Amino acid sequence: MFDRASLRGIIPPIATPLTTGGEIDRSGMGRLVEHVLTAGCHGLFVLGSTGEFAFLTARQRREAVEAAVDAVAGRVPVIAGISAVGTQEAIDHCRAAMASGADFVMVTPPYFGSMVVRQEWIADHVLQIVAETDARVMLYNVPPLITDIDPRTVARLAEDDHIVGMKDSAPLLHVQDVLFRTREMGFRVLCGSEYHLAATLMVGAHGGTPSPANLIPRPYVELYEATVSGDVTRALALQEQVNRFSDTLDEIPSWPSAVKGALNLMGICGPTMAAPLPSLTAAELDLVRGHLERSGLLA
Amino acid sequence: MFDRASLRGIIPPIATPLTTGGEIDRSGMGRLVEHVLTAGCHGLFVLGSTGEFAFLTARQRREAVEAAVDAVAGRVPVIAGISAVGTQEAIDHCRAAMASGADFVMVTPPYFGSMVVRQEWIADHVLQIVAETDARVMLYNVPPLITDIDPRTVARLAEDDHIVGMKDSAPLLHVQDVLFRTREMGFRVLCGSEYHLAATLMVGAHGGTPSPANLIPRPYVELYEATVSGDVTRALALQEQVNRFSDTLDEIPSWPSAVKGALNLMGICGPTMAAPLPSLTAAELDLVRGHLERSGLLA
Amino acid sequence: MFDRASLRGIIPPIATPLTTGGEIDRSGMGRLVEHVLTAGCHGLFVLGSTGEFAFLTARQRREAVEAAVDAVAGRVPVIAGISAVGTQEAIDHCRAAMASGADFVMVTPPYFGSMVVRQEWIADHVLQIVAETDARVMLYNVPPLITDIDPRTVARLAEDDHIVGMKDSAPLLHVQDVLFRTREMGFRVLCGSEYHLAATLMVGAHGGTPSPANLIPRPYVELYEATVSGDVTRALALQEQVNRFSDTLDEIPSWPSAVKGALNLMGICGPTMAAPLPSLTAAELDLVRGHLERSGLLA
Amino acid sequence: MFDRASLRGIIPPIATPLTTGGEIDRSGMGRLVEHVLTAGCHGLFVLGSTGEFAFLTARQRREAVEAAVDAVAGRVPVIAGISAVGTQEAIDHCRAAMASGADFVMVTPPYFGSMVVRQEWIADHVLQIVAETDARVMLYNVPPLITDIDPRTVARLAEDDHIVGMKDSAPLLHVQDVLFRTREMGFRVLCGSEYHLAATLMVGAHGGTPSPANLIPRPYVELYEATVSGDVTRALALQEQVNRFSDTLDEIPSWPSAVKGALNLMGICGPTMAAPLPSLTAAELDLVRGHLERSGLLA
Repeated sequence: MFDRASLRGIIPPIATPLTTGGEIDRSGMGRLVEHVLTAGCHGLFVLGSTGEFAFLTARQRREAVEAAVDAVAGRVPVIAGISAVGTQEAIDHCRAAMASGADFVMVTPPYFGSMVVRQEWIADHVLQIVAETDARVMLYNVPPLITDIDPRTVARLAEDDHIVGMKDSAPLLHVQDVLFRTREMGFRVLCGSEYHLAATLMVGAHGGTPSPANLIPRPYVELYEATVSGDVTRALALQEQVNRFSDTLDEIPSWPSAVKGALNLMGICGPTMAAPLPSLTAAELDLVRGHLERSGLLA
Repeated sequence: MFDRASLRGIIPPIATPLTTGGEIDRSGMGRLVEHVLTAGCHGLFVLGSTGEFAFLTARQRREAVEAAVDAVAGRVPVIAGISAVGTQEAIDHCRAAMASGADFVMVTPPYFGSMVVRQEWIADHVLQIVAETDARVMLYNVPPLITDIDPRTVARLAEDDHIVGMKDSAPLLHVQDVLFRTREMGFRVLCGSEYHLAATLMVGAHGGTPSPANLIPRPYVELYEATVSGDVTRALALQEQVNRFSDTLDEIPSWPSAVKGALNLMGICGPTMAAPLPSLTAAELDLVRGHLERSGLLA
Repeated sequence: MFDRASLRGIIPPIATPLTTGGEIDRSGMGRLVEHVLTAGCHGLFVLGSTGEFAFLTARQRREAVEAAVDAVAGRVPVIAGISAVGTQEAIDHCRAAMASGADFVMVTPPYFGSMVVRQEWIADHVLQIVAETDARVMLYNVPPLITDIDPRTVARLAEDDHIVGMKDSAPLLHVQDVLFRTREMGFRVLCGSEYHLAATLMVGAHGGTPSPANLIPRPYVELYEATVSGDVTRALALQEQVNRFSDTLDEIPSWPSAVKGALNLMGICGPTMAAPLPSLTAAELDLVRGHLERSGLLA
Repeated sequence: MFDRASLRGIIPPIATPLTTGGEIDRSGMGRLVEHVLTAGCHGLFVLGSTGEFAFLTARQRREAVEAAVDAVAGRVPVIAGISAVGTQEAIDHCRAAMASGADFVMVTPPYFGSMVVRQEWIADHVLQIVAETDARVMLYNVPPLITDIDPRTVARLAEDDHIVGMKDSAPLLHVQDVLFRTREMGFRVLCGSEYHLAATLMVGAHGGTPSPANLIPRPYVELYEATVSGDVTRALALQEQVNRFSDTLDEIPSWPSAVKGALNLMGICGPTMAAPLPSLTAAELDLVRGHLERSGLLA
């Protein structure tokens, strides 16, 4: 069993391959997992935003975790997303994820539209999940999409042994403050934004969950290694390189659609999305194809 | 069977009474339904925001609709909320609501945090629900909590016979534009904001879904009657009166908690909320109790 | 001298004609004033947003007021905008406007970018202006561009005899609440948004300041007359007509540029804008020209 | 004369001391300048946000620059803020600042409330200032208060020899992207946010303009020196220390009022603010006094 110290390095938030009928595509998941683990990634995060978690049914979620756990086969830790709008649903997802073999679970604050969720409600949400499930939980902070978790709330929750870390997609300022406030607590902090991964590692983050690592895992692994070995110049050169790669995909309104469209072109899985997320339009597909060709990712 | 023309007047978005164990409280629901129908309300909307829909499980939702339909017993039309983050879940909720006897269903755009949802995705979301279920659907517009439905999108959807109306909680400007663009289409427009109900009726809305009508249904019924009979002075006097009533409750961060806390004090149902929505704090309870006493709502 | 009761009906917020060298174009101002007064407008508001006030120098502002006052020649009341980022500058503008013959002045809250201005600071800002100048002041509420003035702040300020009214560009809800809270104080409320002018008049507003009245003053005058005479059907038909007219111009990023570009095509004044506001691009000019032709505004 | 390479290290955005009558307090300015230069600061920025620039008249602004230039007496470069809502006013401020002896000027995008300013308008605004004045200009990016300057706009402007650098108060991501896009152009980038100064220096920024350096200049100078000498551990320890110092002052709604209130308690200048910015309330004054005492800043 992996302990919390295993939460380090590059942990891609993988896409969820679907068959045309909307079932979990286990062979697609297998190819995707091999693609990122072969490149040296240090863990796997299934059912993050890139994995379309919010749009999948409970059954699809459970099967996605099973498929990911099977494909990983114990080589690296598997974190499973269990976020939901309501607390009871999150608890149900948590139980299913644990039964499916996830090593850790990750949970956002409740996300009912842009409803402002008080810090106290966020803490209660997480603590109820822990109380009902005994899971090892990571917090998932993804403002401004979902209410920001205040670093003081994080520090308070980090005192609970079950709450082991955080994926923080907020600005560096916030990641840094979480690090300042949880120092010497063994709390693991992963950078959620691929654009400032090197800088967050420099101020103490333990790793990152760059979504483009679905497509180009190797440069992120190298960026991580360069940063931890103190080669700032190389780390920043790699950071600039991967940022420019992401810029083009960011022009597409639905990021998960861009990632899965690219994976489809790369022969890893099909292009089916969970509605209401759309598949790529013809124009978007052309944009992605051209970009992948220029990046040397298509044979 | 009620036709779309029945969608008029005051249609309260009722709270969802829960037992302390979190089950649907059928007797509480019965008392609440009698409270509003006795006052002359013209319909019932179960599983709106006030009804905590987003935080209930599929089973709780189904049982809430069943309880409401049973209590109404055909006296007025029942609209059931079926909104979900993902399209497949909304379809599942829709089928359950129809099987439970709802006359109409109501659906928001997808609401994954503050994710910007394109108008095209919204239209596809609604049209997929219609295609899969054959339900009679109302649109539920509740910005800025959930992405605004553009009046042009509304007009396009209103051409589908299954899409019969809208509850619009946007500013009057938006309600008016929906009315302008759907005129002579038989599309029914209900004002979602209780604060400008009279004015929206004056520009042509067919009714409203004032949430405080859970507590004080009668003045809203009178406001509706005054407006449609052309007594503007009386309508505005009533509007001011109910707005001042709502102001106090609006000081509480969770509106559904305020409504249910008040219903509890009024002896209609228990105070249990669906997490992460909180029950009232002691200070909030004092505020509500004092307000209800001053308003003559406590014996 | 006009008293506060003269603040009623249609009071266009006129553009500020400029020569190519950036001086106030007095003959252009004269033609614009005749254009709107001939149509029956009931007052004139110089140096509102449409008048580019924020981008003009103190000298340009003073000369614009002088030109407007001269052109109006006492036929209707003239309101002059005196807004500034800092209180001292607003006081200076106020003195200049009064010296130039303005009947009333109008002032927004301080507007340093999106700085949140506390209600207390807003009240102090306005009260200092009154204390230093003895002017008759209207409040100018234009959210979300500038911090919203809370209706309770308005009611408090309305107790001062010098603070005689408000132009409120907020949603109807806000206008209505101002009316509720200032009733029987003689406070004059003008609707700032041309899109819901009829509805605000129905709930008690005294007039409006529709910006498109620079171009099409007559339908707004007719809308006002229809509404006050109780012809709701005609008022709403006119409202829909003018809203559709505005929709096209609203596609242009800079509204003042759209208005002045149209005035230029109509032969009323030149197209010069105060930087950083841009003149219309060629494509925008085509859009406006086509729209004016279809609307019968070009010979 | 200082060249652009002098733009490095800690350059405090100093407060603008005012007499009780609202005049520039030259002796207060002298004490403040000595306070920060004695601590080792590398430059001075007069008329930034902390300096209340937006609320001062043209005369006050000119005299503030004169007072700062006199006090600095050529020891370090002086940057003068010249920002305005309109382009012509910014040009006027620029000429005055140059005539008063400023080495560089700094300009934000136009800031009329929360008006969205197109990138093209921002570029034109800056280029017109350069064309009219021949000044050496720094860009001043301060989102979300004022429209963000896109890094691509920065890169385009950086090609103009007169546009020598930028103070960037955006998140690290933005600062880093500006650095990536202006590399090898000699463009100087100063971190505008005191909270992530160390991290931005690590990714290549040349210095910073921490506002709390008005009060505690020395730790920022040490942080800068630790970072450039590669002592990351010490740099982050200092960063945490100064961030905790700022947290308390950040509780006060008006930051410039907090700084000036503290400077007053420290005996450096009086507490007078430029309206509408408020002086500290009694409660705020107590908060600041206690904080300064605990921080060892009061004798």
